[in-house]
Amino acid sequence: MQIIPIEGLPIINSGDNIAQLIHDAARKQGTPIKDRDVLVITHVFVSRAEGEIVNLDTITPSELAKSIALQYDKDPALVEVVLRESKNIIRMSEGRMITETTHGFICANSGVDRSNVPGERNAVLLPRDPDKSAATIREEIKRLINCDVAVIVSDTNGRPLRVGEINVAIGVAGLQPIRDRRGEKDLFGYVLKVKQTAVADELASAAELVIGQADEGIPAAIVRGYNYMKSENAKATQLIRPKELDLFV
Amino acid sequence: MQIIPIEGLPIINSGDNIAQLIHDAARKQGTPIKDRDVLVITHVFVSRAEGEIVNLDTITPSELAKSIALQYDKDPALVEVVLRESKNIIRMSEGRMITETTHGFICANSGVDRSNVPGERNAVLLPRDPDKSAATIREEIKRLINCDVAVIVSDTNGRPLRVGEINVAIGVAGLQPIRDRRGEKDLFGYVLKVKQTAVADELASAAELVIGQADEGIPAAIVRGYNYMKSENAKATQLIRPKELDLFV
Repeated sequence: MQIIPIEGLPIINSGDNIAQLIHDAARKQGTPIKDRDVLVITHVFVSRAEGEIVNLDTITPSELAKSIALQYDKDPALVEVVLRESKNIIRMSEGRMITETTHGFICANSGVDRSNVPGERNAVLLPRDPDKSAATIREEIKRLINCDVAVIVSDTNGRPLRVGEINVAIGVAGLQPIRDRRGEKDLFGYVLKVKQTAVADELASAAELVIGQADEGIPAAIVRGYNYMKSENAKATQLIRPKELDLFV
Repeated sequence: MQIIPIEGLPIINSGDNIAQLIHDAARKQGTPIKDRDVLVITHVFVSRAEGEIVNLDTITPSELAKSIALQYDKDPALVEVVLRESKNIIRMSEGRMITETTHGFICANSGVDRSNVPGERNAVLLPRDPDKSAATIREEIKRLINCDVAVIVSDTNGRPLRVGEINVAIGVAGLQPIRDRRGEKDLFGYVLKVKQTAVADELASAAELVIGQADEGIPAAIVRGYNYMKSENAKATQLIRPKELDLFV
């Protein structure tokens, strides 16, 4: 299995065709996209192409946002954006807000990102519908070069219990995000009882190793040689555990 | 970056030399170990070599173990082993025990595994000291072929908030498990505020994609081409978040 960083991609602007840019860059560096590749693309790249950027100077913060900002020494407009992107506040402490986003992901600051955006007063949001973003890129790759690929839109997430962030899948198209191995037999013939592997998250983490390694931004990578299970109706929200089934918290 | 499964490894027994077996198998399949490789090895392989297998027929369950086993329809001897391997019970529900292991990892059933062990009445434990296991394998590779590699002992973990299991690092040697990027600048010159990447976990997840793919067991993989930060005193316990710093729960 190979993980190939896609280099030489331009700084992307609203309306740009991500599939075309990635196809061109992959070909230019001598690793053209092939059938069964998995394209992992960071959400910031996708959000920028989709125009999901907010100029904080245009935001009128609510009283709640102003109060939170005052307590935690944050930008009231940024807090307002974080609140607008959330449907639930899970926890606030030490200046960090853990929220449930409108999509249902639980993460810091509703995934709103101040880094990698030109202009001090801008913030980039998560894509409106990351599964749809992934599906659109997949369709466009099919149209351009007639290759059937899988696409993962990734985000960098902190997590409970463990230190440090890892990349996970917030949008998927073309592959089963979870490999269900219940019922399969192990090396000695036992039936595996609990074995649902979150392969979309593992693919996102694998890609981060080359994406995060570069000094200048590398927003996408190809995972080649991973024999994923195809799916035409996959959703990254399958990876969100319903609260009532969460044994850890 | 390449992820190379190590095939043709024998079923391992107590006292076997893991480094020698992996070195031989890697050479035999035409991908000999090189300097700067990361070897990711599943804990079951390591535990078996270290004799960390318990015959459940030799275990006398405590009253607590018997009571838990009765409530959840489990094997009392297995419950007893899970309790002995834990220093804290985090939660019990639906027949699953989430515990804090003697090492400090929070996982299901203290990491005790019934699968991939020959003999119906055996269970495999986590290695006593997975960092030491990793360090020993690293030293032995150095002695055998004079290559400086990093070693990760991995485990399959469920996690809060998200569905499905991913592989994480429970033992490390030779590499910094966390890449601390705080202070680095992003694409537009902003200083990244929060950016500690758990690269050892991402490497374990990347390896799982080839380890978990095989029908017969593949217990190890080489990650080649990842430019890790070397460390002579790394510990996987650096990846355990102190409870008082956990914002999620």
